Amino acid sequence: MPARRGSSRPILFQDSDDMRLSRYFMPTLRETPKEAEIVSHRLMLRAGLVRQESAGIYAWLPLGLRVLERVCAVIRREQDRSGAIEILMPTVQSAELWRESGRYDAYGKEMLRLKDRHEREMLYGPTAEEMVTEIFRASVRSYKDLPKNLYQISWKFRDEVRPRFGTMRSREFLMKDAYSFDFDQAGARHAYNRMFVAYLRTFAGLGLKAIPMRADTGPIGGDLSHEFIILAKTGESEVFCDKAYLDFDIPPETVDFDDVAALQGIVDAWTSHYAATEEMHEPEAFAEVAEDSRLAARGIEVGHIFYFGTKYSEPMGAKVAGPDGIERPVHMGSYGIGPSRLVAAIIEASHDEAGIIWPDSVAPFDVALINLKVGDAGTDAACAQIQSDLETAGLSVLYDDRDERPGAKFATADLIGLPWQVIVGPKGLAEGKVELKRRAGGERESLAIVDLLARIRRV
Amino acid sequence: MPARRGSSRPILFQDSDDMRLSRYFMPTLRETPKEAEIVSHRLMLRAGLVRQESAGIYAWLPLGLRVLERVCAVIRREQDRSGAIEILMPTVQSAELWRESGRYDAYGKEMLRLKDRHEREMLYGPTAEEMVTEIFRASVRSYKDLPKNLYQISWKFRDEVRPRFGTMRSREFLMKDAYSFDFDQAGARHAYNRMFVAYLRTFAGLGLKAIPMRADTGPIGGDLSHEFIILAKTGESEVFCDKAYLDFDIPPETVDFDDVAALQGIVDAWTSHYAATEEMHEPEAFAEVAEDSRLAARGIEVGHIFYFGTKYSEPMGAKVAGPDGIERPVHMGSYGIGPSRLVAAIIEASHDEAGIIWPDSVAPFDVALINLKVGDAGTDAACAQIQSDLETAGLSVLYDDRDERPGAKFATADLIGLPWQVIVGPKGLAEGKVELKRRAGGERESLAIVDLLARIRRV
Repeated sequence: MPARRGSSRPILFQDSDDMRLSRYFMPTLRETPKEAEIVSHRLMLRAGLVRQESAGIYAWLPLGLRVLERVCAVIRREQDRSGAIEILMPTVQSAELWRESGRYDAYGKEMLRLKDRHEREMLYGPTAEEMVTEIFRASVRSYKDLPKNLYQISWKFRDEVRPRFGTMRSREFLMKDAYSFDFDQAGARHAYNRMFVAYLRTFAGLGLKAIPMRADTGPIGGDLSHEFIILAKTGESEVFCDKAYLDFDIPPETVDFDDVAALQGIVDAWTSHYAATEEMHEPEAFAEVAEDSRLAARGIEVGHIFYFGTKYSEPMGAKVAGPDGIERPVHMGSYGIGPSRLVAAIIEASHDEAGIIWPDSVAPFDVALINLKVGDAGTDAACAQIQSDLETAGLSVLYDDRDERPGAKFATADLIGLPWQVIVGPKGLAEGKVELKRRAGGERESLAIVDLLARIRRV
Repeated sequence: MPARRGSSRPILFQDSDDMRLSRYFMPTLRETPKEAEIVSHRLMLRAGLVRQESAGIYAWLPLGLRVLERVCAVIRREQDRSGAIEILMPTVQSAELWRESGRYDAYGKEMLRLKDRHEREMLYGPTAEEMVTEIFRASVRSYKDLPKNLYQISWKFRDEVRPRFGTMRSREFLMKDAYSFDFDQAGARHAYNRMFVAYLRTFAGLGLKAIPMRADTGPIGGDLSHEFIILAKTGESEVFCDKAYLDFDIPPETVDFDDVAALQGIVDAWTSHYAATEEMHEPEAFAEVAEDSRLAARGIEVGHIFYFGTKYSEPMGAKVAGPDGIERPVHMGSYGIGPSRLVAAIIEASHDEAGIIWPDSVAPFDVALINLKVGDAGTDAACAQIQSDLETAGLSVLYDDRDERPGAKFATADLIGLPWQVIVGPKGLAEGKVELKRRAGGERESLAIVDLLARIRRV
């Protein structure tokens, strides 16, 4: 399963949408919703990204859905590049399947169990190890067909006893779950390293700094379990690591996912320094890190990769014949990222008092185009021209053509956090200028319409 | 809500995937599965598009998922173009919401009901009129904010008593459901016409001939309910229509969705001749159609659009203030297309003895590249060159690099039905030629590698 050349699918929405706020559906809130305890939850509700429909269950409104899809596009691009193949399993699974692995009874109340009209026991999948193992064993027979890594991006349900924190910890949530199948442990380690590297690239592609931290492997043992943690002041748990990681380079697009030694080298480097979550923290080992390199901070888990050997393949009979003709259970690993959680995590890591600051790669639109005097022929024409120019160049534009005061438009633009704001009014136009504001730093500059595109592209 | 200029998102997969069959996951079956009663079900199982996980519940394997996503891309493009805005509602809904409309008790056993850990009554949504009405009423207050049309593409569940026919009639199925909100009936009619035209374009874009047929409006009455039916010998029901429809032009990409009169004209034309499903059939009216224009055939329902007035807005209190300041319940319609059903319907309409014949617009890959002598340096190099050339030009290629007999490769290529087959062997290459086969008509021609691209593009 080699790297896929020039992978992969185009990022969505790099097209011309001609989206005007007067016709869009973006129900922003002026007041901070009381129920929201953390900043991402507050901002997602205020900016009209999501709406709660039941406890821990959210509808994704247009702006939020665009972010969610862009997050998925980055994940998908890196999964494809690493050689994983996309499938889509159903949400409703049969209890029978989970009895094969013994998890139907072991799984607690977080599993949403249900019965169909024929009283058959079913469940809303919280994960899919059993089902993917069933799919694998139904057709793969020989070591020659390995390695394989099958992934999906699909909705899962975990019936949390007290759902909160918005989409950071919802009951119905989107998950990218990948499952690798290898003939032996050495193969499985390479599969693990592939996902390790793909995850480094994924989080960097989302504008995040994620640090892999050793995680508990439970009864399986070994060192093949890592959580990917992003640092955010409002993070859910305490993490400890060597600051050296903050300056590490991300593996480049050209990385060869078939090169066993190269991938092992990257993984070795990224696990060479101290990094641990609260559960795995060893104060004595941390004390050995040079004092000015020690970083104790808050973190949010955004990914988890895990090798679990033959835990499912053995009881479920997922075996392949080796070169000697003898059948052995395959070695498996699973690899998860939660896109709906990531949208919240990105906001936790990137916001200010005024609202969200989207990284360029996941912003729902690239540019907020603000018309300061709707109805003024010159201003309207300039806005139409700018929208057309930017969209032709492949940028997406949300045009605020509402009949509102400038102050309200500025507040909305800051709240929804598009990377660029282009502000167009009669005063500036009289001098042939419009204003360009970068949301992240707040820098503003006045420039001619013809220079706009080059300036935005330069970043 | 005007037409969106230059809409919309790019079709997926028009990229270079470097997909080799030796590494892909495409578990084809040699034998025809016994349980499959209809041809699309048989072919979907045999070509490895889907796998049944429970009765009426399917996993989408890589090839099938690519088709499903391309079907969705066409649907989405036309929904966006017509001015509808995409959202995504959760699959699990609260019973409370359905009690507001009175449907919780009225809906029969097809509704999959469940209870969460706190014994709250929930359900797996079979449709979403209630939820979208709740989302609408929470933020829209004035007629100035109308019209609105919100759509989603999401998994639904209907607990059919006897699921069969594969994804044509599955329990867990994908549905595009759109919901329009208008201030009055005239507005709602225009919203209806928008979807009517969008549907005509959607089915044509999928390579299908769909005919709108008047459907039962139930207690609402009126003429604003149509089913879109495609003709297929193996269709589920009998339909009757005037052959004139078969030659009707599809509204062009440039159609102005804001032009009330133009859309009404299109709808009038497309409803001017006789067309009826079994339930609505009036033999006397049909007898008035000129005899050589009468068509009685089998059909498959692939879409349904429906105006239902204030059926939900009234009991659920979804009101907006008019110009006079008085609040009135909004007029609504809903508009459904089932992408997972469409994949099967497309196969019913387009296959032969050897397998599937995908229309170009939904094929999982554009080209099957068949290497007749894997391991031969010249043949391998020619295949690598062809794959690279075609992918650089934006075509997607599935490269059969397996160590298999030519006969098996041809059979696989015919079964999975990619629009083009490029056949590369040492004999042809000795003369500087490869063979190109069009799956649909079976025509073969011998040509130089450099001419391949121009030939494929000419279609």
